[in-house]
Amino acid sequence: MTNQYINDNFLLTSSLAQHLYHSYAKAMPIIDYHNHLEAKEIWEDYSLDNIAQCWLHSDHYLWRAMRSNGVDEHYITGDASDREKFEKWCETAPYILGNPLYQWCHLELKRFFNSPLLLNCTNSDAIWAQSQSELASGKLSARQVLKQCQVATLCTTDSPLSDLKYHQLLASSDFNVAVLPTFRADDLFAFNNAEHFAKTLNALERLTSGNITNLDDFLNAIQSRIEAFHNAGCRLSDLGLTVVEFAPCTHNQATTIFDKIRRKQVVEDSEVVQIKSYLFNELGRSYHARGWAMQLHIGVLVNVNERRKHALGGGTGFSVMNDRLIAENLVQLLSALDSSSQLPKTVLYSLNPNHNPILSCIAGAFQDSDTANGKIQFGAAWWFNDHKDGMEAQLTTLKNLGALGRFIGMLTDSRNIFSMSRHEYFRRVLCNQLAQWVEGGELPNDEMLLRKTVENICFNNAQSYFNFPQSSDLKGNVQ
Amino acid sequence: MTNQYINDNFLLTSSLAQHLYHSYAKAMPIIDYHNHLEAKEIWEDYSLDNIAQCWLHSDHYLWRAMRSNGVDEHYITGDASDREKFEKWCETAPYILGNPLYQWCHLELKRFFNSPLLLNCTNSDAIWAQSQSELASGKLSARQVLKQCQVATLCTTDSPLSDLKYHQLLASSDFNVAVLPTFRADDLFAFNNAEHFAKTLNALERLTSGNITNLDDFLNAIQSRIEAFHNAGCRLSDLGLTVVEFAPCTHNQATTIFDKIRRKQVVEDSEVVQIKSYLFNELGRSYHARGWAMQLHIGVLVNVNERRKHALGGGTGFSVMNDRLIAENLVQLLSALDSSSQLPKTVLYSLNPNHNPILSCIAGAFQDSDTANGKIQFGAAWWFNDHKDGMEAQLTTLKNLGALGRFIGMLTDSRNIFSMSRHEYFRRVLCNQLAQWVEGGELPNDEMLLRKTVENICFNNAQSYFNFPQSSDLKGNVQ
Amino acid sequence: MTNQYINDNFLLTSSLAQHLYHSYAKAMPIIDYHNHLEAKEIWEDYSLDNIAQCWLHSDHYLWRAMRSNGVDEHYITGDASDREKFEKWCETAPYILGNPLYQWCHLELKRFFNSPLLLNCTNSDAIWAQSQSELASGKLSARQVLKQCQVATLCTTDSPLSDLKYHQLLASSDFNVAVLPTFRADDLFAFNNAEHFAKTLNALERLTSGNITNLDDFLNAIQSRIEAFHNAGCRLSDLGLTVVEFAPCTHNQATTIFDKIRRKQVVEDSEVVQIKSYLFNELGRSYHARGWAMQLHIGVLVNVNERRKHALGGGTGFSVMNDRLIAENLVQLLSALDSSSQLPKTVLYSLNPNHNPILSCIAGAFQDSDTANGKIQFGAAWWFNDHKDGMEAQLTTLKNLGALGRFIGMLTDSRNIFSMSRHEYFRRVLCNQLAQWVEGGELPNDEMLLRKTVENICFNNAQSYFNFPQSSDLKGNVQ
Repeated sequence: MTNQYINDNFLLTSSLAQHLYHSYAKAMPIIDYHNHLEAKEIWEDYSLDNIAQCWLHSDHYLWRAMRSNGVDEHYITGDASDREKFEKWCETAPYILGNPLYQWCHLELKRFFNSPLLLNCTNSDAIWAQSQSELASGKLSARQVLKQCQVATLCTTDSPLSDLKYHQLLASSDFNVAVLPTFRADDLFAFNNAEHFAKTLNALERLTSGNITNLDDFLNAIQSRIEAFHNAGCRLSDLGLTVVEFAPCTHNQATTIFDKIRRKQVVEDSEVVQIKSYLFNELGRSYHARGWAMQLHIGVLVNVNERRKHALGGGTGFSVMNDRLIAENLVQLLSALDSSSQLPKTVLYSLNPNHNPILSCIAGAFQDSDTANGKIQFGAAWWFNDHKDGMEAQLTTLKNLGALGRFIGMLTDSRNIFSMSRHEYFRRVLCNQLAQWVEGGELPNDEMLLRKTVENICFNNAQSYFNFPQSSDLKGNVQ
Repeated sequence: MTNQYINDNFLLTSSLAQHLYHSYAKAMPIIDYHNHLEAKEIWEDYSLDNIAQCWLHSDHYLWRAMRSNGVDEHYITGDASDREKFEKWCETAPYILGNPLYQWCHLELKRFFNSPLLLNCTNSDAIWAQSQSELASGKLSARQVLKQCQVATLCTTDSPLSDLKYHQLLASSDFNVAVLPTFRADDLFAFNNAEHFAKTLNALERLTSGNITNLDDFLNAIQSRIEAFHNAGCRLSDLGLTVVEFAPCTHNQATTIFDKIRRKQVVEDSEVVQIKSYLFNELGRSYHARGWAMQLHIGVLVNVNERRKHALGGGTGFSVMNDRLIAENLVQLLSALDSSSQLPKTVLYSLNPNHNPILSCIAGAFQDSDTANGKIQFGAAWWFNDHKDGMEAQLTTLKNLGALGRFIGMLTDSRNIFSMSRHEYFRRVLCNQLAQWVEGGELPNDEMLLRKTVENICFNNAQSYFNFPQSSDLKGNVQ
Repeated sequence: MTNQYINDNFLLTSSLAQHLYHSYAKAMPIIDYHNHLEAKEIWEDYSLDNIAQCWLHSDHYLWRAMRSNGVDEHYITGDASDREKFEKWCETAPYILGNPLYQWCHLELKRFFNSPLLLNCTNSDAIWAQSQSELASGKLSARQVLKQCQVATLCTTDSPLSDLKYHQLLASSDFNVAVLPTFRADDLFAFNNAEHFAKTLNALERLTSGNITNLDDFLNAIQSRIEAFHNAGCRLSDLGLTVVEFAPCTHNQATTIFDKIRRKQVVEDSEVVQIKSYLFNELGRSYHARGWAMQLHIGVLVNVNERRKHALGGGTGFSVMNDRLIAENLVQLLSALDSSSQLPKTVLYSLNPNHNPILSCIAGAFQDSDTANGKIQFGAAWWFNDHKDGMEAQLTTLKNLGALGRFIGMLTDSRNIFSMSRHEYFRRVLCNQLAQWVEGGELPNDEMLLRKTVENICFNNAQSYFNFPQSSDLKGNVQ
């Protein structure tokens, strides 16, 4: 039993770590405040036909790993059958040993499919059969997985152009996991993509039943969407800042630039930076006024493989970390909002781990007592950093440069409902790391301090930081 | 006892580490070659009224931590009483567990105030009472703390415009800790701040009793201040290079640019870079001629929070790491001085830990046998890196890329006299790290090699590197 | 015995690590696919007169370390005797404790010279005498060292302008270590150094017996050299990209720029970037067509110490890591080749360890099934990163972001034949790291998985990735 890969003390290398996890962390409910689940699938209580569906139909992390192993695209995004793709995944697993995907998949197999086998060609038939049998039991539908994992609240990621129909249906149902939308603002910032921006305007006009002929109309329509999101329980926004830029911009300047863009006239790059900075500021003020948190995702260079982008589209496993400089522009973005005391609660993430200490320092320079304890958060390890080493690096930076005890903890960022088990993964890493610091002498071996820290980071901090609405409040908002 | 947080083997996780610390490191005297203590306070043998004075009156590190915990500014830089501020600090401590401030404060409590209690709301009354009692004993005046810590030499940080009165008084007194000034040149480089630069010129004219009407006058006045500093025992300079830039500049060009600046005419950014490069070179040559060391502090983005800067001024806890590129310009700055064999001993620090391997490499490319063994130093972990992980990172980089055995060791960089206990902190980290390398097989378990390395890094290397004057020499220089 | 520095379990800190190394790693033959050995010295079966020759005659790593210790240049590159230089090296060793040079030199002493003594002044006479005695035995000639180390294949680094005479002689001899050339393309890219480029053209004309009057001639001559290298067994190219830049360039544009350069007319920096990008693309296509791998060495800032460059020339220990941005340009370079499915197998190295996660991500975005499993490799720890910490960092990044099981393993990059023992060093680090991951819970304790991973990374992966020709095939190609 103890020789099993995913055993009771998986990732827990000391008795203190085991104590902290089993006594305190394990029992806490989950707030998964950032993921890419579909509210529709939860509403419909979606069930899988087979295990390849959750792992290999849309998860570009696994696609990328298979390509690294030399698997032909036919078995990745091509026409091969689910069973064939699964076989290729089993063939790949031994070559990505230690990769977070290797760890996560085995954790999912153990927790949901009750299989202790290692992923490889020898075991592929047995694992497939076992997973089919577990799926056939009917216990692995979307809602049941969420309940099994003790999820209290989850926040999907939604375009401002989403009608939030399924969130409203879920809110008015008796499903007792709060499924809340997040206002992912990227579509609103498509100023340098005329076609994309025209679609955004059309959709906004449709949703708000009004014409958008100038900047003020645009801002009003956005306000209306923010209102709708708020009524559906949204308390977070999100924005991908692939490049961090800032330029001052008056309302008049923004109005002029907006007109040019709407009329598909040529705009300078510097004007695009200006209107983006302007909108960033307007949105930030709205978030602050409503008590929302603002998530910023920094440091991605998207879809860098031109051939694959043409063949497969974006989001298919070809993005990388960028190394553009961020410090000077990011502090200007935040300081502009802060200067009128309208900087909302903010969570800073970067894909580039070299940014860790920079982001954690910048968080420290904009803390305030106006909204929440730990107002500016250096966010959890994200995407390419979402593994034991990355989590330890994030926790260590936060310990050294910030207030670790105020950390709002982990999110899955995933499209796969079984990824909820990554909260367990994170909690094991957290308890193990705290215990190591105690053993190294940096933390006192104080039961109450450690217990509160664990429970706060696992659940309580996110609860008080985001201040989500009660289910009863939400039901009242639904038409 | 062993369950105490700050126990005899604090941070020492192996028997070899314990042996190295207790047998060798502990007994070495201290050279604190870079701090921000006031010579005046040492001369006056200043005593605290209460523990909040040293921690919360001017230490922007702690202010920042309190803000990260959501404490209102009233209890940080505001009008709250010392006791109230201390209470908020105790309230904050459990939320910054593991932060270097958490570790340092507990170390100071144990070493100077004889209190083993953990900082939190429950213990705040007892800690306050205990610290008041220890302060009342009269054993914690500035001079007594320095003696208790076995400080042999300390170097304050002083503007070239300082009259060094208190350094001279101390030198001519019977206080047997050498309190030496450091020539912190920043005021001389204020070329792009007309008001600041005018003040610099006025003060220089006053101190040197001469008119400064051109570049040569300026350089002569600076030479005169360097002479005065040297006579007061100064053997180090310091400069904050917030941006690392270099442009060649002839004497004639510098003369022209200086005239424009003195007359408050418009100068180009490129001209400011030129005259800064010129002055950097002139100062470096002077330092080399006198056998001084040149400290360069790189990678800070200062006072990024505009609202707070207006409300509280600079140096109040709102600076961050910068990520500007440094390599190409820094090597040009150093190579220009080196090209005439006039590069002084140099200590390179950066706030951005991504710069660690870069700085350590650059140090290696400018080593020479003309001034001191280990001439170009990759400096100790600084500010946001001044903690166990940061020290280990600095030591590891140095081990891999340089001559660890020539490292001149730690400094406090602090305004708080109790920070002298951070030398103990560093020595424990050093001994623990050396022992870990022995256990990992990278170092031989050779008693004499390890002993000499420990003693050299703790004291001997700084002693021979800086070559401070004897007290008797200094007394002769005082008018 | 176990107290010896270089003992049987050097760097192996757990029983699992010891098992993996002694049972599996140790016995594997070596493929040293990148070094700077001279084929001529192997052909001549060169023997040393003394140990200073291999360490101190041309190894700028050791020179640099001696300068860091304050050794006068007379004893480094100057006229001091070998014995004097060796004495200064022994004097330096205790001050660079833990440095990879310290570890490597002791490993070489133990493995080849049968000396367990620590390098220091006390032991210098004994070590010198012992090494002289071992050298006198005649067992340490170049070929014997290669056999003793079980080297199967080694790849030297050669200019396209090399005639490969000694590689051919070796191929047609009965020496059963394959000594293959690598096509190091740098001389072909000297577009912004008119003198260097003229030399390149002259040498190409001589080697190919034709005139080069335009771009097409130049490209044809290069093809002819690639053919000659291929026939001599070359399957790798190499290029130092000190700056990563990309600009699109048509054949016509390249032709025009080439003409300007050939006529020594002024060319814009942007034109140099264009023609470099053009040549990069042309070479990449040729490598792909022949099944070669392309090595890219990034992030060096060369010869930054102007005074030393004038005195000693390049490659004498004065290069550093650069911090220029790389991501956006590097993905364009690779994507341009990939867009026509002509990106060859590629190995990405950077001197700046901040680039580790960036390079590993970029590798992941260009994987494909067309050439080899693990087509795009994040390369082994290089130069300033070639030590335990650097190797662990590289392996950890690869584990988290790529397919560790497809890693092609270590190379020496060395001019010193005794450096072959660094494969032992790497294998110990590898086994120790794998065991640590098992103990931390990240890897399953699965004997077969661990064994295959070890054996593949030590030898099998490089074998199948590079697909070197059989000796018999080569002999046929020699004229």
